[in-house]
Amino acid sequence: MNDTHSSSEIESAPLQTVHVNLGSRSYDIAIGRGILQQTGERIAALNPGARLAVITDETVAKLHLDALSSSLSASGLGHVCLKIPAGETSKRFEIFERLCDEVLEARLERGDIVLALGGGVVGDLAGFVAACVRRGMSFIQVPTTLLAQVDSSVGGKTGINSRHGKNLLGAFYQPDLVLADTAILDTLQLRDFRAGYAEVAKYGLLGDEPFFTWLEANWKAVFAGGPERDEAVARSCQAKADVVAEDEHEAGRRALLNLGHTFGHALESVVSYETERLVHGEGVSIGMMLAHEFSHKLGLLSEPDMHRVKSHLSEVGLPTRISDIPGQMPPAETLMDIIAQDKKVSRGNLTFILTRGIGQAFVEKGVDPALVQDFLTEKLAQ
Amino acid sequence: MNDTHSSSEIESAPLQTVHVNLGSRSYDIAIGRGILQQTGERIAALNPGARLAVITDETVAKLHLDALSSSLSASGLGHVCLKIPAGETSKRFEIFERLCDEVLEARLERGDIVLALGGGVVGDLAGFVAACVRRGMSFIQVPTTLLAQVDSSVGGKTGINSRHGKNLLGAFYQPDLVLADTAILDTLQLRDFRAGYAEVAKYGLLGDEPFFTWLEANWKAVFAGGPERDEAVARSCQAKADVVAEDEHEAGRRALLNLGHTFGHALESVVSYETERLVHGEGVSIGMMLAHEFSHKLGLLSEPDMHRVKSHLSEVGLPTRISDIPGQMPPAETLMDIIAQDKKVSRGNLTFILTRGIGQAFVEKGVDPALVQDFLTEKLAQ
Ligand SMILES: NC(=O)c1ccc[n+]([C@@H]2O[C@H](COP(=O)([O-])OP(=O)(O)OC[C@H]3O[C@@H](n4cnc5c(N)ncnc54)[C@H](O)[C@@H]3O)[C@@H](O)[C@H]2O)c1
Ligand SMILES: NC(=O)c1ccc[n+]([C@@H]2O[C@H](COP(=O)([O-])OP(=O)(O)OC[C@H]3O[C@@H](n4cnc5c(N)ncnc54)[C@H](O)[C@@H]3O)[C@@H](O)[C@H]2O)c1
Ligand SMILES: [Zn+2]
Ligand SMILES: [Zn+2]
Repeated sequence: MNDTHSSSEIESAPLQTVHVNLGSRSYDIAIGRGILQQTGERIAALNPGARLAVITDETVAKLHLDALSSSLSASGLGHVCLKIPAGETSKRFEIFERLCDEVLEARLERGDIVLALGGGVVGDLAGFVAACVRRGMSFIQVPTTLLAQVDSSVGGKTGINSRHGKNLLGAFYQPDLVLADTAILDTLQLRDFRAGYAEVAKYGLLGDEPFFTWLEANWKAVFAGGPERDEAVARSCQAKADVVAEDEHEAGRRALLNLGHTFGHALESVVSYETERLVHGEGVSIGMMLAHEFSHKLGLLSEPDMHRVKSHLSEVGLPTRISDIPGQMPPAETLMDIIAQDKKVSRGNLTFILTRGIGQAFVEKGVDPALVQDFLTEKLAQ
Repeated sequence: MNDTHSSSEIESAPLQTVHVNLGSRSYDIAIGRGILQQTGERIAALNPGARLAVITDETVAKLHLDALSSSLSASGLGHVCLKIPAGETSKRFEIFERLCDEVLEARLERGDIVLALGGGVVGDLAGFVAACVRRGMSFIQVPTTLLAQVDSSVGGKTGINSRHGKNLLGAFYQPDLVLADTAILDTLQLRDFRAGYAEVAKYGLLGDEPFFTWLEANWKAVFAGGPERDEAVARSCQAKADVVAEDEHEAGRRALLNLGHTFGHALESVVSYETERLVHGEGVSIGMMLAHEFSHKLGLLSEPDMHRVKSHLSEVGLPTRISDIPGQMPPAETLMDIIAQDKKVSRGNLTFILTRGIGQAFVEKGVDPALVQDFLTEKLAQ
């Protein structure tokens, strides 16, 4: 922890590297302020002479594309820039098809690179494009939201949504490099930063009590952009990388990363993914709180631990109750139907991530749906 | 070699199994007459309780879908049947999207199965669907053309065409099981059988002189459907499996499988993939002949070996000269442009598979384009 740094030293905070260990598909995540300016050099070192298709969204393009493009040009890397509209609705088939076509149109070869400059939406889409064009091009992530830096850019899940649900089409496809410039997050809306922070807190809650304790003490500096931010991003990436290295294709332990997500996804679905009402990280925040409350109700989690979670999420400004979501909520039955259809339900059994304490989450298969429904009925009434 | 079997014993010809060794993604190819009727049993043993989406084309559906469907039902395997129009034009984005949607519509889960019943078109499409839906479902191939049994169903290449070229979108995705019923080939058009046979001969020519010699002696029985057919399919699958196991993602040795394909693809492209004029295997046959003639011209291959190849391909009824293709041919420059754009061209160098004798093909990088153009000019004049 670099907590001896003063804020004037931020610019020169040392870079951190997290190695994601996946055999022949291993790669590094480089983390630090100002790393965006090194993109060209770093790529030229990895893949000299490569050409790139930079995929980004219109919002990010206005703020950060020039800096990236200059860095690539300075290293003599030819590139085309492909823009998509900002927002979740871009994660659809039509845009996927258009991007694949544009990458081919640019005559990129198989050793050339698709680079994602943006949040999770851009990363998921661009990664799926990289996976499919010429059966797999080189892929580099430059995540620009906190959520993308600590979550979506690590682990190789890529994809788009379908009318049948979120992320139903995609590929497991690992990047060759991730460059997480923590200074790039300075332009992020507070609401988006907070949403990403829910995933940071998740890593503490699911398996690292000391990290959660550290966040309770240091979250303000993480938001402000001190070296604590780099530290929080690096620890989160490391946590996800460890789980992914053990279980690349989500057969077992990786399910822990879904802490808060079964409830969270159901809530996102109920509001039809209208981000004015609820963004993913907010759903996760409420979902994590529900998972802790449900664990408490089942006699697994102590009341003080449950309150500690609530205090911290509330303190940073994240929602923790279903009633924090603006607008009407449907009855518990509707939420249950959505949960039952959730992709994490395998042949009829309900799988939940429950917990026995801060940092002590575990996978519980075969949770009784009746208990969940009772619990949700209670919560909807609050 | 089962050449002691008489034709009356065909029905009870023993099954053969080729194991494709790819670590955790290893799988078996079971080969034999009548294996289609065992599909249900075999799948139930591998993945009990699974549900299936059977993807097939309209021609194959009429001939063989009932038998497959009965076998699945007899083993209690629930399934939906999804049909596409027969022919190469089905390998396009729109149909890929529709199939993904239909698999999701059928509410198949991640452990459920996409089964391809058809030739290379169905296999390539269905495999890409299996790779992408829920980021990867279980995939089973029941190849129904000779080409699909000896080539496209082995090795994990899946995909569709783009307006920029063939097979430009796709995934490397291995099946969990391949069931090659050699009796199913009895309903194949002679022209399609021959086209597949070009790929069989290819395995001999690229690395197995004894197999080529065996084919010279036994090709009639292979066409007629004797146990020699099973033998030829098994040896071809084994040859491809060996190469694929060594080089799953086509970095090196796997390129040998492209013997005849650089020229062949250029010819297919020149006729705009109009299958009335040229089907893939015919292109490969002419392409293999050209590769041998070019090798001879370069002083690598003896004249008797070159003639041996020509005699055998002609004897089985395959085309061997560019002028065997009906209709007009463009000048050599046009063919060269297509070859230069071919996906096997890496950053400007021309890579060709050349040969020093029957069964002695090798990868030659950096072939002088001028030599190729001279050679093609000569051939176009014949
Ligand atoms: N692949 C995975 O493992 C994984 C994990 C979690 C979430 N996801 C996906 O990630 C997506 C959500 O990601 P997200 O929250 O980053 O959404 P996002 O990409 O839509 O970004 C949120 C908003 O922030 C804007 N933005 C991005 N960077 C900015 C910056 N530096 N400054 C100012 N504005 C900026 C974007 O234009 C967008 O409007 C969802 O689609 C979700 O399914 C994927
Ligand atoms: N994935 C790979 O590694 C790989 C390798 C080689 C070729 N391919 C692809 O394979 C495709 C060509 O495969 P194909 O030659 O099998 O073409 P195909 O699938 O179009 O089949 C040829 C024709 O035979 C019909 N047919 C199929 N089985 C039949 C049967 N048992 N009886 C009667 N008719 C039958 C089909 O309906 C079709 O009209 C091309 O798209 C090519 O790109 C892929
Ligand atoms: Zn999440
Ligand atoms: Zn071929």
